[in-house]
Amino acid sequence: MLLDHIHQPEDLKRLTVEQLEQVAAETRHFLVEKLSVTGGHLAPNLGVVELTIAMHYLFDSPKDKFIFDVGHQSYVHKILTGRKDKFDTLRKYKGLCGFVKRSESEHDVWEAGHSSTSLSAAMGMAVARDLKGEKNRIVAMIGDGALTGGMALEALNHIGHEKRKLMVILNDNEMSIAPNVGALSHYLARIRSDRHYVKVKEEFEHLIKKIPAIGGTLAKTAERVKDSFKYLVVPGVWFEELGFTYLGPVDGHNLPLLLETMKQADKVNGPVLVHVITTKGKGYSPAEADSHTWHGISPYKIESGQVLKTVGPPMYTEVFGSTLIELAKQDERIVAITPAMPGGSGLLGFAKEFPGRMFDVGIAEQHAATFSAGLAEEGLKPVFAVYSTFLQRAYDQVVHDICRANLNVVFAIDRAGFVGPDGETHQGVYDMAYLRSIPNMVLMMPKDENELRHMMKTAFEYNEGPIAYRYPRISGLGVPMDETLQPIPIGTWEVLRPGSDAAILAVGPMIPLALEAAEAMSKEGVQVRVINARFIKPMDEAMLLQLAKEDIPILTLEEGAELGGFGSGVLEHYSQQNVYGLRIKIIGVPDYFVEHGSVKEQRKEVGFTAERLVSELQALVPRRRQRA
Amino acid sequence: MLLDHIHQPEDLKRLTVEQLEQVAAETRHFLVEKLSVTGGHLAPNLGVVELTIAMHYLFDSPKDKFIFDVGHQSYVHKILTGRKDKFDTLRKYKGLCGFVKRSESEHDVWEAGHSSTSLSAAMGMAVARDLKGEKNRIVAMIGDGALTGGMALEALNHIGHEKRKLMVILNDNEMSIAPNVGALSHYLARIRSDRHYVKVKEEFEHLIKKIPAIGGTLAKTAERVKDSFKYLVVPGVWFEELGFTYLGPVDGHNLPLLLETMKQADKVNGPVLVHVITTKGKGYSPAEADSHTWHGISPYKIESGQVLKTVGPPMYTEVFGSTLIELAKQDERIVAITPAMPGGSGLLGFAKEFPGRMFDVGIAEQHAATFSAGLAEEGLKPVFAVYSTFLQRAYDQVVHDICRANLNVVFAIDRAGFVGPDGETHQGVYDMAYLRSIPNMVLMMPKDENELRHMMKTAFEYNEGPIAYRYPRISGLGVPMDETLQPIPIGTWEVLRPGSDAAILAVGPMIPLALEAAEAMSKEGVQVRVINARFIKPMDEAMLLQLAKEDIPILTLEEGAELGGFGSGVLEHYSQQNVYGLRIKIIGVPDYFVEHGSVKEQRKEVGFTAERLVSELQALVPRRRQRA
Repeated sequence: MLLDHIHQPEDLKRLTVEQLEQVAAETRHFLVEKLSVTGGHLAPNLGVVELTIAMHYLFDSPKDKFIFDVGHQSYVHKILTGRKDKFDTLRKYKGLCGFVKRSESEHDVWEAGHSSTSLSAAMGMAVARDLKGEKNRIVAMIGDGALTGGMALEALNHIGHEKRKLMVILNDNEMSIAPNVGALSHYLARIRSDRHYVKVKEEFEHLIKKIPAIGGTLAKTAERVKDSFKYLVVPGVWFEELGFTYLGPVDGHNLPLLLETMKQADKVNGPVLVHVITTKGKGYSPAEADSHTWHGISPYKIESGQVLKTVGPPMYTEVFGSTLIELAKQDERIVAITPAMPGGSGLLGFAKEFPGRMFDVGIAEQHAATFSAGLAEEGLKPVFAVYSTFLQRAYDQVVHDICRANLNVVFAIDRAGFVGPDGETHQGVYDMAYLRSIPNMVLMMPKDENELRHMMKTAFEYNEGPIAYRYPRISGLGVPMDETLQPIPIGTWEVLRPGSDAAILAVGPMIPLALEAAEAMSKEGVQVRVINARFIKPMDEAMLLQLAKEDIPILTLEEGAELGGFGSGVLEHYSQQNVYGLRIKIIGVPDYFVEHGSVKEQRKEVGFTAERLVSELQALVPRRRQRA
Repeated sequence: MLLDHIHQPEDLKRLTVEQLEQVAAETRHFLVEKLSVTGGHLAPNLGVVELTIAMHYLFDSPKDKFIFDVGHQSYVHKILTGRKDKFDTLRKYKGLCGFVKRSESEHDVWEAGHSSTSLSAAMGMAVARDLKGEKNRIVAMIGDGALTGGMALEALNHIGHEKRKLMVILNDNEMSIAPNVGALSHYLARIRSDRHYVKVKEEFEHLIKKIPAIGGTLAKTAERVKDSFKYLVVPGVWFEELGFTYLGPVDGHNLPLLLETMKQADKVNGPVLVHVITTKGKGYSPAEADSHTWHGISPYKIESGQVLKTVGPPMYTEVFGSTLIELAKQDERIVAITPAMPGGSGLLGFAKEFPGRMFDVGIAEQHAATFSAGLAEEGLKPVFAVYSTFLQRAYDQVVHDICRANLNVVFAIDRAGFVGPDGETHQGVYDMAYLRSIPNMVLMMPKDENELRHMMKTAFEYNEGPIAYRYPRISGLGVPMDETLQPIPIGTWEVLRPGSDAAILAVGPMIPLALEAAEAMSKEGVQVRVINARFIKPMDEAMLLQLAKEDIPILTLEEGAELGGFGSGVLEHYSQQNVYGLRIKIIGVPDYFVEHGSVKEQRKEVGFTAERLVSELQALVPRRRQRA
């Protein structure tokens, strides 16, 4: 295998183009084989094999800066920069990260798990290079989906203004994760498929040549027309108007052509955009046929493409999707909004059932939030389905457009808490802290998948402002499902286990752990009450008052940032009520970014274990209440 | 005066175009006169007089929905919808709001103080209209500056995709607040000034007509060329490619032409963009000559245009600006980034001194943050100067691109705390809560303008990750300024007044109030220690430990959201350290949106008064320590 001899980009530069093509084929084989065991972002990486090889062949990383937008497209880059041997540990605890990771290699300069950041980062690096008087290249690779993110468009606007040397490779696979939406996507499609532009240009030039025969003045006019025409008829006028030199479209799997075009682009002394057409999943037929499913995939059988699944209770996401259909049948005001995640958010069924009430707005969380506000303003019941980590992009819109105006927007916050192998860029651990401090917001989390259904009912019946329910990226508990859905009174908690020596206020998936610890304490003769703190805001003030009256120690437990989270809310409440002297221990995610691994490993790392809880409870409960 | 007879839009519809022009003139006169006393957004409103009259003359508010992007352009709208008599109370406490306000009028449907939200809101309302089977118009007015905001671009992409009937009026005054930057701005300028496009189109059509004489095949080609040409050569191809019908550019002060164009636009059955050229400050020469200064203005003398200023200590913003120049002279790695606020952020001097190190990226906070990250990644020392309320737009970038990667980005957070007359959309009261919960962030606030200078020194010398200093929109205290700047040890507080009966931990501009309350308590024989809690994160753990040892009551005081703010941090810390039983009262901004007024009135409303503090302290301090 040629690939076995590639340990660094230098090793590529000695090869012929034919050999590079062989490296490409071997890389594909390697990826399909390795990911069949570990899982991972297969389809996106199969799409950029030639592109990544071309970058490393032509340019000089790490002197030249390669910036991958959403670093899950960096597997090929990792293979070519000495990390091939670590692929068995991909996305595993303490193993190879599924995204670009600076601590792994000097070739990794920009880390990102969220989309659309590459152009801004590239622009920063280009300015720094110029101010330092250096000469290196800056090459950003961005997908057509990521390009519709507002910050990428802001960056285009700035890059075109500044005119510094910088190469943008538009990796156009007609997909973000789901098939792409948006006017810009249609525009790219026209360039790709129509070929009308190119033809027109050729025909026009032919026409112009004939003109001089007509006469002097007209010929002069024609010349002027031609002048303006040349930058109007080229494909990519949209980018040219923004100050970019546009090259393409070019087939991203034709290595000789790709190398030729990128060499040409390298000569441009200013911002240049190379429009590269790629096929997601290229070279592995199951992935090519259904690149949506194969975007991020669990382990699979290589021959059949059969994904290995563990049987178990439904995921929270699935319960959300099916319940939404149920509720939408009864209430025609319900509409759903997703920022390019119809599949991940469990909305494919809804989209099929109610195509006119489903809005995939592309990778555009900010717009999605305020679009929801506009819908609510006119009396509809929008549900903005979004991952916790991506809702961060719409923080200002949540504050300024939704909560301040107190509009009836429903938030379905998926992937709340630890997310496992996607790791630190995707952890959904800040939303409780950042949403709780915004006035008018109601925030819930269910103890199980059945309660999620009731919370959805609660949210759609609530008419006094924004309301959110958050749920984790895991399976439910397999509990029986109620057929009739009842709204839960706002701001009420639930006692799950009695006890008068201490109380645990636990949020969502921390409840089983709380029950386990309570059970263990019970054996020591200490009776711990376990409370389902299903409303993070507003809190159950009556129950808090009762706890204060009983004066028993309280432990709060949440899979969210400890600073500013639910536990802080409990502390604040007592201070606001002038209740002092209680023993309250808050436990949440400590103040650092928790890296990839399984959710179980992440929980263990931060101390979400029954042992830890028992030890905290032992310290918290006055000795007189403990046995011996 | 005709204007005296306009109480509702219906009253306009009875007038002739000449009379409308008179109404326009009278409206300008009214605005110049009223704002000379109250202050307010004069220049933007003088620019949209004809535009707003045309909207109300042609369309039917409130059935038709008018959406003003950044509602400070809504004064004319307010005058025409029955609120003329309230202009003496403009931007005053309990008076007329300086932005669109739903509670004021049925004609106000969309509230916004932040830029670039209008298109998303309009799209939501258009979808709601269609789903409800209604027929009203949706008209959004957006400035050319606001159009560069990422969320507006996201919305364009979605609107162009959905193709619903919706009118966007692009109010192009070549300005946002400062002169506009960005490639899109250059593009608009080319359309405006060049007229080349229009000429070329005419000449080409002339040329095409001559072609048939040449021969059959060529004529057919020419026809096809013409077909494609028609939508390529029109000005506005950039918008046409996104799915809009583009009309314009049209002179926004020529009422007959404006009415004609808007009527034509109204016939388009899909998204249409009307490109209107306006002059900011139109009709009042001081404002026309310097629309930047006159964007938002204090009271002034009408004849001379002289702005009435109160003499006093420098604003924090000015101290930031001058100190930055001082520091940048010593450290060439320092570069400054502003999202379209060079003046408001006090950076005009810096820009003049270091033009190559100053980056105005347009209204693009997300890009600004990640652009800063890119600069820091390459070893520069970027300072992102931004208002607290606008930093909300970059929350995800702060988490994901800066804090997670732990890059040395410096944040200069202006307008922290209450902002006075801009009111609820602009209050800088959430940043302590939302920044404190992000790992790696260091957050400071100075007690006075002299300490701000030392904090700036601290920030630029700190090399271990992101660091922020926040300061209010008020004058400094007039304290003497140190010439030599010394970094302040990270995470250290300062005792400003001794006392062993209680302690107030106060942040920034709350310190004078704390001292006042301590003084009052002293007269009752209770000695209150006042501590300058200059680091919101990390906190001074040694001092917190000392307080716990002394077991004295603690009162925390901050002009920021009480939920999740600094006070919560103090509560959390003791819980984390297993220190229980302390009497800690947290005081911050209560959990609702505080409306416009003076900062003094806003503070009084939420209870930031010495009387309140005295009463809280009296309740907090055990009786034995109080006299009698």
